[in-house]
Amino acid sequence: MYSEITLPKGFKCAGIAAGIKPASVKDMALILSETPAASAGVFTTNQVCAAPVKVCREHLEHGLARAIVMNSGVANACTGSEGIVAAKEMAAEAARLLNCAPQEVFVCSTGKIGPQLPLDKIVAGIGTLISAADAESVQKTAEAMMTTDTRPKVSVAEFAVDGKPAKIVGFAKGAGMIEPNMATMLSYITTDAAVEQHALQAALKKAVDSSFNRISVDGDQSTNDTVLALANGEAGNTKLDENSADWAVFSEALERVCFELAMMIVHDGEGADKFVTVNVKGAVSEIEADLAARAVANSMLNKTAWAGTYPDWGRIMDAIGYSKAKVVEEMVDILYDETQAVAKGCRSTVAQEALIKVVSQTEFAINIDLHLGEGSATVYTCNCTEEYVRINY
Amino acid sequence: MYSEITLPKGFKCAGIAAGIKPASVKDMALILSETPAASAGVFTTNQVCAAPVKVCREHLEHGLARAIVMNSGVANACTGSEGIVAAKEMAAEAARLLNCAPQEVFVCSTGKIGPQLPLDKIVAGIGTLISAADAESVQKTAEAMMTTDTRPKVSVAEFAVDGKPAKIVGFAKGAGMIEPNMATMLSYITTDAAVEQHALQAALKKAVDSSFNRISVDGDQSTNDTVLALANGEAGNTKLDENSADWAVFSEALERVCFELAMMIVHDGEGADKFVTVNVKGAVSEIEADLAARAVANSMLNKTAWAGTYPDWGRIMDAIGYSKAKVVEEMVDILYDETQAVAKGCRSTVAQEALIKVVSQTEFAINIDLHLGEGSATVYTCNCTEEYVRINY
Repeated sequence: MYSEITLPKGFKCAGIAAGIKPASVKDMALILSETPAASAGVFTTNQVCAAPVKVCREHLEHGLARAIVMNSGVANACTGSEGIVAAKEMAAEAARLLNCAPQEVFVCSTGKIGPQLPLDKIVAGIGTLISAADAESVQKTAEAMMTTDTRPKVSVAEFAVDGKPAKIVGFAKGAGMIEPNMATMLSYITTDAAVEQHALQAALKKAVDSSFNRISVDGDQSTNDTVLALANGEAGNTKLDENSADWAVFSEALERVCFELAMMIVHDGEGADKFVTVNVKGAVSEIEADLAARAVANSMLNKTAWAGTYPDWGRIMDAIGYSKAKVVEEMVDILYDETQAVAKGCRSTVAQEALIKVVSQTEFAINIDLHLGEGSATVYTCNCTEEYVRINY
Repeated sequence: MYSEITLPKGFKCAGIAAGIKPASVKDMALILSETPAASAGVFTTNQVCAAPVKVCREHLEHGLARAIVMNSGVANACTGSEGIVAAKEMAAEAARLLNCAPQEVFVCSTGKIGPQLPLDKIVAGIGTLISAADAESVQKTAEAMMTTDTRPKVSVAEFAVDGKPAKIVGFAKGAGMIEPNMATMLSYITTDAAVEQHALQAALKKAVDSSFNRISVDGDQSTNDTVLALANGEAGNTKLDENSADWAVFSEALERVCFELAMMIVHDGEGADKFVTVNVKGAVSEIEADLAARAVANSMLNKTAWAGTYPDWGRIMDAIGYSKAKVVEEMVDILYDETQAVAKGCRSTVAQEALIKVVSQTEFAINIDLHLGEGSATVYTCNCTEEYVRINY
């Protein structure tokens, strides 16, 4: 429960049931800055992308933002020009009530691809959200973002810049369709630190690359992925950029929040009950290490083996072998946590029971050394259970 | 049941229980040509490949072969130099009994990665196989090749070359770990047609590309995939090559047998109960059409949607969008069989019930038109059920 958390200074939020989902489930959220905030955004790389993503990209050019309005239940993806009009209308309605430019409002949708937004419900919801918004509704806001998530996801960092206390509060949703470059993943970062817009954008991109872009649930990428950051400067510090003395303090706090949220997403992987860290080192390059780690993390045979607490390192050898990373079979070492399963490409002398013990844990690491170079990478993933299949029926 | 089938002239086969698998399950097979046969082979592209694959590649250079000896239960993969010695010993033992060069014997293994071959059982098994071999043991041979397969897979073509009756009998196994470029997939093609070795190799490669390389069960590629063809010339025709009058007759029969075997593998996909053909046309190139089709066929979200008889075309849009094929969202049409789900990137006016009806069938096609060019490709796949997860525990 996040009921103890308050937003950074000058921010308010709300989460309500606007009738988009059935049975009074919360389905709309608002994040609001009382003053214009420097904004940054990172979006899905999918060529098929949702109307709100297109609108956000356009609004991001404005540089300043007052609000993020989002709905769950309907993705407003593959909805053509009607979908774009609806996303713009969603921003315009919030702007009208907040007395700002539509470009100062970001809009997000998550849920089913195909249907048009129920605009009447959305418009009514925006009014309710603005009336309800306060600095304490963190739990409700995070709940309203959820789709197949089993729990809301919030992370907080407190720090000082320029001697002034400042804060980051981040929200996220996502549990399936998670792959490289984000997927059905939404995250909103609020901070009262004052940050130059270009520096905020660079810091957000870097933080996303080392967090949300390092997780994989099912290898599918979504049409709606969006990470937005708003920095409203209410902490009163001198505006930060990469040259500021306290830049590292801020950027590390941002990375920490993004990383924590990303880990929450993997932990909440659809139907998953095991968290697996795949470390690859000794690759020819960092890029190749990443390719090998993702091949393992995305392999259905590995995910199902982990579900069955079956230490099938052969499936790991297989996956790195077909990855685009250079692999010399006879050089490969694989450890489950600290227990060596493979030595120089062959089964180690370790007893199978020792490996089963590691894979029986709810969290463990697969440590792969290709012994070819200096490249290393880590991908965070989860197992695949029968429950995953049921959820996605 | 394949009990009515006899092998092409001059071939014998056998399938026995050699004690590698528990409970007297058949686990060794032999295919034998009484005279040296022209040979061809296509192998896994995985960088991690099994010892028998390495040995087969070497023996293929000999050009002529007498026999294929295989075992199921143990893959002899990731077994280092000991594994190579065992695979060579397997070939040498058969060669000794058949009074031929070891290079004239191909060896294959399929099953668990890691353990060494139980060479004593293998050696004893080879003797039993050779004694048991006859032209009628097609069913037993196909059964001995099985791992998670639920049924043996055999295909036959009869034709005439040079006015002489000739025949192809093909065997296959494979049910999981199936992806582009073959995976835990073994196939043996026997024919009594006389074929030049280089022409046989080219024809086999072409047949594999349009059959085994067009199927996908779970996106994983194996370490042991092998397709071998033996042509012993006992039909008495003049040796065929690409310039022969009857070349098309032979090469089309070969393609037909490979295609039929490949379709049997998809139909027997681990835990699958639906057969799905993914057709992409209108791509910028054939390669891009293939990328888009594979993205759809390999997407867990699509496979599970099909399992749930849920016509979620949004997941198809999503998958083509993140594929490496160029996609312009507003141009895309998607049909389930002949029923249009997506028109110009948006939901068509067709009722959901009509789509559900298509997806409820045990076989249907996803027809995607990107409207960007002339490239087209087809991939054959299956759904993913909870049973898949259970099988791979």
